[in-house]
Amino acid sequence: MRLEILPVLGIGHVTEGDDLAALIATAAPWLRDGDVLVVTSKIVSKAEGRLVDVPADGPERLAARDEVLAAETARVVASRGPTRIVQTHHGFVMASAGIDASNVDKTRLVLLPVDPDASARALRAALREHYGLDVAVVVTDTMGRPWRNGLTDVALGVAGMSAIRDHRGEVDPYGNELQLTQMAVVDELAAAGELIKGKCDQVPVAVVRGYLSATGPDDGDGAKVLVRDAAQDLFSLGTAEARAAGLADAVTLADGPGPTPADPAATRRAIEAVVGVVAPGTVFTLVDESEVRAGLIAEVPGWPDGATALVLGSPPAPVEPMDLVRFGADLHRLRVALAAEGIGSALLPPPSGSTASATLAL
Amino acid sequence: MRLEILPVLGIGHVTEGDDLAALIATAAPWLRDGDVLVVTSKIVSKAEGRLVDVPADGPERLAARDEVLAAETARVVASRGPTRIVQTHHGFVMASAGIDASNVDKTRLVLLPVDPDASARALRAALREHYGLDVAVVVTDTMGRPWRNGLTDVALGVAGMSAIRDHRGEVDPYGNELQLTQMAVVDELAAAGELIKGKCDQVPVAVVRGYLSATGPDDGDGAKVLVRDAAQDLFSLGTAEARAAGLADAVTLADGPGPTPADPAATRRAIEAVVGVVAPGTVFTLVDESEVRAGLIAEVPGWPDGATALVLGSPPAPVEPMDLVRFGADLHRLRVALAAEGIGSALLPPPSGSTASATLAL
Repeated sequence: MRLEILPVLGIGHVTEGDDLAALIATAAPWLRDGDVLVVTSKIVSKAEGRLVDVPADGPERLAARDEVLAAETARVVASRGPTRIVQTHHGFVMASAGIDASNVDKTRLVLLPVDPDASARALRAALREHYGLDVAVVVTDTMGRPWRNGLTDVALGVAGMSAIRDHRGEVDPYGNELQLTQMAVVDELAAAGELIKGKCDQVPVAVVRGYLSATGPDDGDGAKVLVRDAAQDLFSLGTAEARAAGLADAVTLADGPGPTPADPAATRRAIEAVVGVVAPGTVFTLVDESEVRAGLIAEVPGWPDGATALVLGSPPAPVEPMDLVRFGADLHRLRVALAAEGIGSALLPPPSGSTASATLAL
Repeated sequence: MRLEILPVLGIGHVTEGDDLAALIATAAPWLRDGDVLVVTSKIVSKAEGRLVDVPADGPERLAARDEVLAAETARVVASRGPTRIVQTHHGFVMASAGIDASNVDKTRLVLLPVDPDASARALRAALREHYGLDVAVVVTDTMGRPWRNGLTDVALGVAGMSAIRDHRGEVDPYGNELQLTQMAVVDELAAAGELIKGKCDQVPVAVVRGYLSATGPDDGDGAKVLVRDAAQDLFSLGTAEARAAGLADAVTLADGPGPTPADPAATRRAIEAVVGVVAPGTVFTLVDESEVRAGLIAEVPGWPDGATALVLGSPPAPVEPMDLVRFGADLHRLRVALAAEGIGSALLPPPSGSTASATLAL
């Protein structure tokens, strides 16, 4: 068993309306059934006319590029300086939505194909219908990634094979069941193809031979299965953006007890997080609802059913108006610290007859 | 030009103290100068004795595994449920610090090699010294990644070639200089190797032939150049962790004007972010320092040089103590909103003679 990775030489410049299947079949008459074609998305985009005209330079070029980027962007994931990591309408997370100014006239930008899986299916179908070839097609682009320098090629679209090779449920020779072994083989094929494309100048297509014993009975589910839903992703936002969102959470913190009863240990952690940063002399007293019910402290107005009360003592007497303002600010610090522990709270007047200045209902 | 990817069959089980160079050279007498050996880190770890004994099951196993994970962890990057994405002491960011329980006895865990670049160099040197082979060595492991489902193999260590192929400065046929084209070719070689390793059961070594015309004159800088410094990374923390850090920022918010003068537009954005969530009737008045200097408002005690003052009106009269507490809480909301705009602030008493309840110096 061996794999071969072969460059398809002589494709030349691709322009809108070009028949990619014809260009590839002509340049590579040696293609065989079962080959995997690894096709740079740029030539797919060019053939499909996914180009926009922009000024060659100057601020007009930057403005036009920004406009194109906004149109290609579903959401901004992270930014720093001029860098924009965005999620495209396809769901891919990549710098500048994959918009590319290389290998194209200075007055044009190349966008990603609208539907790279569809592009892969169309190219596969054309090679089958017009050239009798049964191949798989992977449409690729170059992406950066968190945590590791350097770029690699990955798959945007695929037809004729599964994007993922699933080893789950297999048992190793030691009797351990493999758990987390869904390999993104089309990304590995994209990477393997880049090795030869990057060595040869301007080679937009590579062929991986020997990987498939046969192509799939149908086109398969495409590369869209590689897109992880942002809600499932532990890194759905840039660190700075998420940190800013945490600050915004503290600004807009809504009144109201949390959905679950406050855990006293977590409540104490929150108090401990705050006591070092509040005005000296401020006292936070954690009072259990049962103590109120038992009449140990006076009734708390507006106490919600099932809530625990955190009664807050004012700064030491005599209390000046500014002390109450500072105390209120410290109270919001505490509410934020409680929120960081998952504990909702509401600011209420102090229990009648008590010397406290306010109450937090948890 | 073509690349070949060949499996090295028949290596069998590797145990501590095994001579990997001998195992590989014996199993692959067909190795040639210039081949790239793609070696699964697990057999490197096993040969180097990077194994720890753990109970085969039960809570003792989980506790032992947690202890091992803590020892292999430089910092926790993200967690959700039992999942831990950590940065290892090498700098790699990966689930469970690369600790693996597959392809090993149930009573042992396999850790990553201590220094995979050194492992690659040692294997390369042994093949050269004892078998006269001049090859490059890539030590690999399987990793997940943000945003994309499925795993791929990447390089942990390399010797005999550069980890990165740098196209910067090259000019494409359209005259555009290539900007962002440092390709992580050893990661692509790792991925290419996995294609054949994953197809054959239990094949820990693949050979990529034809990629290098010659190995490097020396071992090169290793795969450590692929580790991006966390300070440079836009995704150095998980989204939930960064969001919690943002909340913690709001808790501990220190008094003090920011390092740069507050931008009035940003200040107004912060006020606008807050006015919808503060108590009805609260008035925030933005006052420029020049107005104070010109005597338009009374002097603000403690006004720092060069600061802008934001004078905050109390809730409508008559002001009850609880109104001042609420006002203080709203004031902290505003301070957090200002912080989100990069504007530092300090809570000060109101200007003498004014009807405001407090002052924020920006």
